[in-house]
Amino acid sequence: MTAASAARPSRILQGRTAAPGFAAGRIVRLERGAADGIAAARTVGTPDEETAALKAALAASAADLAGLIGSLDDEEAAAMLEFQLAMLEDDALTEPAFAALAEGMGAEAAFAAQLDAEIAGYRASDDDYFRARGSDLEDLKARVLAHLAGEAGTAAMIADDAILVGRDLAPSRFLEIDWRPGQGIALAEGSLTSHVAILARARGIPMLVGLAGIDAPDGTEALLDAEAGTLLLAPDAADRALFDARRAAGLDRDRDAATFALEPAATACGTPIQVLLNIGAPSDLAGLDPALCDGIGLVRTEFLFHGRGGDDLPGEDEQFEAYRAILAWADGRPVTIRTLDAGGDKPIPGYTLDGEANPFLGLRGVRLSLAREAVFRVQLRALLRAAAHGALKIMIPMVAVPAEMAAVRTLVEEEAASLATAGTPPGRFELGMMVEVPAAALTLDLFAVDFVSIGSNDLVQYLMAAGRDSTAVAALADPLAPAVLRVIETVAREAAARGVPVSLCGDAGGDPAAIPHLLAAGLRVLSMGAAAVPRAKAAIRATTLPGRRP
Amino acid sequence: MTAASAARPSRILQGRTAAPGFAAGRIVRLERGAADGIAAARTVGTPDEETAALKAALAASAADLAGLIGSLDDEEAAAMLEFQLAMLEDDALTEPAFAALAEGMGAEAAFAAQLDAEIAGYRASDDDYFRARGSDLEDLKARVLAHLAGEAGTAAMIADDAILVGRDLAPSRFLEIDWRPGQGIALAEGSLTSHVAILARARGIPMLVGLAGIDAPDGTEALLDAEAGTLLLAPDAADRALFDARRAAGLDRDRDAATFALEPAATACGTPIQVLLNIGAPSDLAGLDPALCDGIGLVRTEFLFHGRGGDDLPGEDEQFEAYRAILAWADGRPVTIRTLDAGGDKPIPGYTLDGEANPFLGLRGVRLSLAREAVFRVQLRALLRAAAHGALKIMIPMVAVPAEMAAVRTLVEEEAASLATAGTPPGRFELGMMVEVPAAALTLDLFAVDFVSIGSNDLVQYLMAAGRDSTAVAALADPLAPAVLRVIETVAREAAARGVPVSLCGDAGGDPAAIPHLLAAGLRVLSMGAAAVPRAKAAIRATTLPGRRP
Repeated sequence: MTAASAARPSRILQGRTAAPGFAAGRIVRLERGAADGIAAARTVGTPDEETAALKAALAASAADLAGLIGSLDDEEAAAMLEFQLAMLEDDALTEPAFAALAEGMGAEAAFAAQLDAEIAGYRASDDDYFRARGSDLEDLKARVLAHLAGEAGTAAMIADDAILVGRDLAPSRFLEIDWRPGQGIALAEGSLTSHVAILARARGIPMLVGLAGIDAPDGTEALLDAEAGTLLLAPDAADRALFDARRAAGLDRDRDAATFALEPAATACGTPIQVLLNIGAPSDLAGLDPALCDGIGLVRTEFLFHGRGGDDLPGEDEQFEAYRAILAWADGRPVTIRTLDAGGDKPIPGYTLDGEANPFLGLRGVRLSLAREAVFRVQLRALLRAAAHGALKIMIPMVAVPAEMAAVRTLVEEEAASLATAGTPPGRFELGMMVEVPAAALTLDLFAVDFVSIGSNDLVQYLMAAGRDSTAVAALADPLAPAVLRVIETVAREAAARGVPVSLCGDAGGDPAAIPHLLAAGLRVLSMGAAAVPRAKAAIRATTLPGRRP
Repeated sequence: MTAASAARPSRILQGRTAAPGFAAGRIVRLERGAADGIAAARTVGTPDEETAALKAALAASAADLAGLIGSLDDEEAAAMLEFQLAMLEDDALTEPAFAALAEGMGAEAAFAAQLDAEIAGYRASDDDYFRARGSDLEDLKARVLAHLAGEAGTAAMIADDAILVGRDLAPSRFLEIDWRPGQGIALAEGSLTSHVAILARARGIPMLVGLAGIDAPDGTEALLDAEAGTLLLAPDAADRALFDARRAAGLDRDRDAATFALEPAATACGTPIQVLLNIGAPSDLAGLDPALCDGIGLVRTEFLFHGRGGDDLPGEDEQFEAYRAILAWADGRPVTIRTLDAGGDKPIPGYTLDGEANPFLGLRGVRLSLAREAVFRVQLRALLRAAAHGALKIMIPMVAVPAEMAAVRTLVEEEAASLATAGTPPGRFELGMMVEVPAAALTLDLFAVDFVSIGSNDLVQYLMAAGRDSTAVAALADPLAPAVLRVIETVAREAAARGVPVSLCGDAGGDPAAIPHLLAAGLRVLSMGAAAVPRAKAAIRATTLPGRRP
């Protein structure tokens, strides 16, 4: 042991893996720079100088945002940045700040005061959607202040070996960084299902959350092992040797996984497993080889409603075209399209209910569709028209009781009859449901459905009574908890006994650590994001089912 | 059929029963009077006259509230009114209104404007507690405005045969009415578990909720049958005859029920059933004969924490005295005391987490106790000291996984050892848990507990993913849904197989309609509010268990 390592011994922090992978580098703390303590760093000029400075910073920020939006293929992330851009270009936001400059205030102070007032209004809202917009305005404020301080772009140019450390990370902050292989993220809070976790997985940046007590200063050497869920600070030579061996083994596994990614999946004992894709928008399919999957297990149709609301909901033709494009990509493979699953953490102005005390236990999914029947009928007609163009499975979210499926079936039959009367009878299709409400999982025998798909994220949330969005209870939200696996086993057994095809389309479906348990519970069809497929197929290949031989 | 009834045919509305009973009378709409349209009805006087008028109205309102508080034996209701009284006496609230009078504003407009500003602040809060305080301020505003208009007291003097009809009813509005037998409540919204529903049940006022489309004008004749859940408008003679017969039969049942209320309960086939009490405060036991019950199945210790928070939490001695008083009342019968079940819809400033997006899925019950260990240890010590004074069962709320019970057991053992070291070893006690999180219900075999009690309110909420506080999904929150009864049956069977005593302490336990199903599911111990005992024992006597003979 050297004197240096004796003085600062290596220390290991255990967190939870939000995105897999390895990173060896140095801590870069998120808190410094940008909005912090910058206002004092520049001398306030004349009102004209301040006006020019603020105009330049606003223009540079708008250019940043427009550039970021153009570079994204994630529709949800783009919508978030479009909101910031729209706010920047809104005179109602900027004029009071310019007015304050005329009275001798500095650009930083004037803009920060104006944004803080706006942010306070959003933060005070009862509505999750508006509270989230408050976070977006925080991002916007930080960006403009950074431009005023001539510091913008620092975050985008973090070192090649940076391991970003902080309490939490805003999605837009994530998006402005030019991520490169070798970098990583380690957060004290955060969650596995946050937007930034989804982005990190999609970009292949290893990320840990829930690392209590990360107080290492900037520049501390660190080894981030997101396979083990650990962050090792101030490693010694032995730590490094072990880390390098684990990383090399991980890379080998990834190479193997990529080799087999386009092959059909089967367990070590030879049982074929279907691998389906979850997609959030048609653009998620760009550049993908359909051989990657056996079909699409979940199309989240919320993408059609992002940033819309009131009278501006997507019409039947617009929806039909979107569904047809996805069926065309699938080239005859089955495509499961979920009807609008709004509410909960997915508000749509004028459509979802505002101010619910517990939106995850409120009017969402099929409950909302049945309460907003006119909107639902438009989606059903678009789906029925699309059915002629592929193997369509229509999936209903948040079903709790058989009466809900019966009500849906009536509407589907009415719309099908109306299309037939109009001379365009719908093609063949199946009608099934998500199994995510515990009541549905425990009474599958009472439902008349063509197929079911287990939504493990919500199922876990309700079984454990632990909100997906709550850091404080994140440890309880474990998809491998005995209660969850028992319910999955019950659903798989009951569905098999009744000849109803069953799949699983929550995050657990693409998690190599969960896959052996899901297969042992009886599942043979898993649906997951495209990025998860190679590792998931490798995990399937490595699994031997109980009672079988490899 | 007479010409009159042909012109206005009787019409039946179906709702849900929040409090049982019958009422025949005339519709009195809640919306009229009080705060509505009064400001214009009085001529604005000189600033001195307006000041005198506002002072008088404030004094009269304070006298109202003080009188109401003195008349209540419901601690939660009293705390709510004490908040209103404290606001009335707060110069920060009233001074701006008096200042506006000096500038020529009328008393009504000035007070309403000041209150509206306060209410908006509370309503905008992320915190359920503060949002509820906004409703209290609405009540306060209406009361003061009614005094200014010389109309206060009208609500308190509703006709003997009034059936109050409205969208919803604030608890403080309920409390100011001098309720008499024969009156009733019929609400378009409302919920079975609201505070006003609990008050109506306690006062024996029949109440229906969820009556969509009550548009009958004041004075319409109506028959409220809260056994059937119906409100019949403009009844004809045949309607009246049927209603009278049903009411007479109901009264007979009540008389029978009262006769047997102090006898032990048994089914028609002779199986003894234990009936326990749920209490919210020691005062709930005032005037009750302990023979009414076989013990206390649920003491909600939140009463010790009402209106407190920060550094003002109840100390060990205060808690010990409260627990000892309850054990003394029970006179050797078992008493189940639940440790603090805060969070969810029960915030305590400085103790519970603010701003949770879904508090029912958040840090509550045992999760919060384990996160605030120092507060929990105080309660455990007080309970362990009280154990020497009766048959104490300590019950832990919101347990999801065995690790939580293991952590609790360690703390209990540490506090017991510490008491023993101090020379006051605790008496005998049992340590058990609520079964209300579905995960716990489905993995009972994994827990080491002395007893369990099914919390059906929360269990239903999580199994159905339908919030208890949401009118929009109230129909889904059905304790008799097949999924719920299956889980109850599973818990009863598993507990019996393992020799663990099991009871049920949610609202369903005292509901005569639910009781036959709960007994059929295998339960033999039910816990309920004292007011529900006579009818519940009658329902038990009328039940024949499956496969038995009466």
